[in-house]
Amino acid sequence: MRAVDLIRKKRDFGEHSRDEINFLISGYTRGEIPDYQMSAWLMATWIRGLSRAEIAALTEAMLYSGEVVTFPEIPGKKVDKHSTGGVGDKTSLILAPIVAAGGLHVPMISGRGLGHTGGTLDKLEAIPGFNTALSLSDFRRVLAECGMALIGQTAEIAPADKKMYALRDATSTVENIGLICASIMSKKLAEGSDVLVLDVKTGSGAFMQKEQDSVGLAELMVETAHRMGKKAVALITDMDQPLGRFAGHSNEVMESVEVLKGRGAADLRYLSLELSAWMLYLGQRTKSVEDARVLAEKLVASGEALEKFKQGVAMQGGDVHVVEDYSRLPQATNRTEVKSVSSGVLAATNCMEFGLALAMIGGGREKKEDRIDPGVGLEFHKRIGDRVTAGETLVTIHYNSEAKLVEAKERIAQSFTFSDQPVAPKKLVRRLIGA
Amino acid sequence: MRAVDLIRKKRDFGEHSRDEINFLISGYTRGEIPDYQMSAWLMATWIRGLSRAEIAALTEAMLYSGEVVTFPEIPGKKVDKHSTGGVGDKTSLILAPIVAAGGLHVPMISGRGLGHTGGTLDKLEAIPGFNTALSLSDFRRVLAECGMALIGQTAEIAPADKKMYALRDATSTVENIGLICASIMSKKLAEGSDVLVLDVKTGSGAFMQKEQDSVGLAELMVETAHRMGKKAVALITDMDQPLGRFAGHSNEVMESVEVLKGRGAADLRYLSLELSAWMLYLGQRTKSVEDARVLAEKLVASGEALEKFKQGVAMQGGDVHVVEDYSRLPQATNRTEVKSVSSGVLAATNCMEFGLALAMIGGGREKKEDRIDPGVGLEFHKRIGDRVTAGETLVTIHYNSEAKLVEAKERIAQSFTFSDQPVAPKKLVRRLIGA
Repeated sequence: MRAVDLIRKKRDFGEHSRDEINFLISGYTRGEIPDYQMSAWLMATWIRGLSRAEIAALTEAMLYSGEVVTFPEIPGKKVDKHSTGGVGDKTSLILAPIVAAGGLHVPMISGRGLGHTGGTLDKLEAIPGFNTALSLSDFRRVLAECGMALIGQTAEIAPADKKMYALRDATSTVENIGLICASIMSKKLAEGSDVLVLDVKTGSGAFMQKEQDSVGLAELMVETAHRMGKKAVALITDMDQPLGRFAGHSNEVMESVEVLKGRGAADLRYLSLELSAWMLYLGQRTKSVEDARVLAEKLVASGEALEKFKQGVAMQGGDVHVVEDYSRLPQATNRTEVKSVSSGVLAATNCMEFGLALAMIGGGREKKEDRIDPGVGLEFHKRIGDRVTAGETLVTIHYNSEAKLVEAKERIAQSFTFSDQPVAPKKLVRRLIGA
Repeated sequence: MRAVDLIRKKRDFGEHSRDEINFLISGYTRGEIPDYQMSAWLMATWIRGLSRAEIAALTEAMLYSGEVVTFPEIPGKKVDKHSTGGVGDKTSLILAPIVAAGGLHVPMISGRGLGHTGGTLDKLEAIPGFNTALSLSDFRRVLAECGMALIGQTAEIAPADKKMYALRDATSTVENIGLICASIMSKKLAEGSDVLVLDVKTGSGAFMQKEQDSVGLAELMVETAHRMGKKAVALITDMDQPLGRFAGHSNEVMESVEVLKGRGAADLRYLSLELSAWMLYLGQRTKSVEDARVLAEKLVASGEALEKFKQGVAMQGGDVHVVEDYSRLPQATNRTEVKSVSSGVLAATNCMEFGLALAMIGGGREKKEDRIDPGVGLEFHKRIGDRVTAGETLVTIHYNSEAKLVEAKERIAQSFTFSDQPVAPKKLVRRLIGA
């Protein structure tokens, strides 16, 4: 078998056998197939597509390119959530302690932000001292004792994906549902969960902007999880505007703690509880998802979820006093406001632009090597459907450096669309797949 | 400008500006754009295609990636021919001395064989002592004195093409007429000819098997040459069967010398004279192509072309006595025959298979690093339209080693198709483009 022939086959609309996929992925992981052949195959694949059988084979080949973690020593269900990413998407920080407080175990291997999206690891690291680089044995210990542990991808887990993702990023071969499914699921299936709740974003701030594409990806991922013997469900959720009131690392930690205190933005609170409920229900903590919703609310109201959050932070080396004193989080020194020049009803936002503007002022990465300023952030004052009068503040920018500030402000200002007519608020959970 | 954005643009059906093409090619040639980005762009380009304007820009960017040779010290027209390659295609060895004997200069920069095709350099090197690696100053000296000089591509000429061709070969992105046109023309325009006669092969032994594709490529190449101020014409010629009676390096030198002696296979003689005539006419040696045909025949009949061949061989260090004594060429020790199992009229051959079978027994390269055995060869006894009786010899194989001989024989035997009905002989020159 030769890589050049497999590239030709995909180029010419062929369907790969399982053996062919294994040859490509194992050869590439071992360095026997060079980057330039893999990138040609990826482009052919991006354009020609992958069949269900090819996606299944690719996911498994990538999964078994590295270590597959299991937790036989921990009794009960291990449950996890994965989001395809968006702006202000901080639900992991909220639902992990709720579900752990509910008696299940949440082994969560998360990513970093890139482009317009934030990353759970970066947000956690806004907490002084928080260590996301636990060894696998420390990860097991924290998980067993606390019920939740949050770390970054290790070199041992799905190394094929790590290598391929960097290549896809540099060769414009990212946005293909087969490749995305294999990338996400190879990592998520390797981390030892029995249950996976998927939050597939759709809209102007998501990788998949059309609902139909998001549904396609969600169906693929749920099907892949089921095939591997995992319980899974996917929620198609709105990303036509930021989730919650804040984007930016310290701000998002603060907003998450507010939700755990029973306060915070309604949309963020609603989605976090909904995802928690599905995790609790599929993890067999309750008999129905309705019961699970009640349980999740109770775990917040009782303060148990907040206590679990503090325990998790402490066990991973973080400063637990941030929970009572947000000023212990890195702060931006300056504020400036983006005011509306129009009057009308807020009809739409170009949500991805908010993420890119945040990255410009230091709150995200344009390149992998970039350092993040956790103090900077955006506060959103209006939601779709709200009436706005010219001169009202749309966004407050928390910034440290004036470099690119004018550009970022401009970018934000241009990302709102107004209407003369009433506009219905956005439905947050659009569809449920696999339930 | 970033390579990743240009890859995305081509992937998404975009058309590149001249600046974008220059950025890609100059960046790749200098090593600033890595192989893996170029190969993703090449695959996107292979699938999405290139516009006429993009092909023009690409050709020029590749041309000016290196040195562009001129011969201001040599008076009169410099003329060259390029063939897209096939089986038994040895016309360069015949037409270069004819045209040089006619008083024009032929600076010919040729390639090596790969896959099923032979290469002019490899054929010349079957002549003991023949040196195809002249320095550029020796190339100029031989050209000025003899009227013809034949060398291989130097590192200075179109380095972008050298690098890109190797990458295309390894990533299944070869057969795209825009990329092929830019590859051929960037080299041919760099070698200082005023006139270019293109022999674009079509049929089962050509890279372009459909006549329509060959015509498309021919039109593109002629248009590109015209745009760069060169005279050019393209002949679409048949490659549904081998050209001449022999394939294999020593055999092809011998057959070429036979034609220069006024003998040899009729098809080879006809095409060599026809190409020579177009070179002589476009090089303004005659007032019409008819006059040029007469002149070319005269140059062969008078022995002037053969003398020019001997002068050229001598000046490039080769053994001129091969012309009188073919046994001075490397010879294969053994013969075996492929006999027909059917009776009927020879209707078609899978001509590429002959080239591949020849490569298997050592007379070609499967990989660039492979060494060639110049002694081995194939002799074809039947042409399309000929009546064949079961038991008659179709092909005589000249071989040295029995390794893969059975496979090669089988491959040859399976590449003939017979008919019960009369079959018209193939027209050799199918169309003329740009005249």
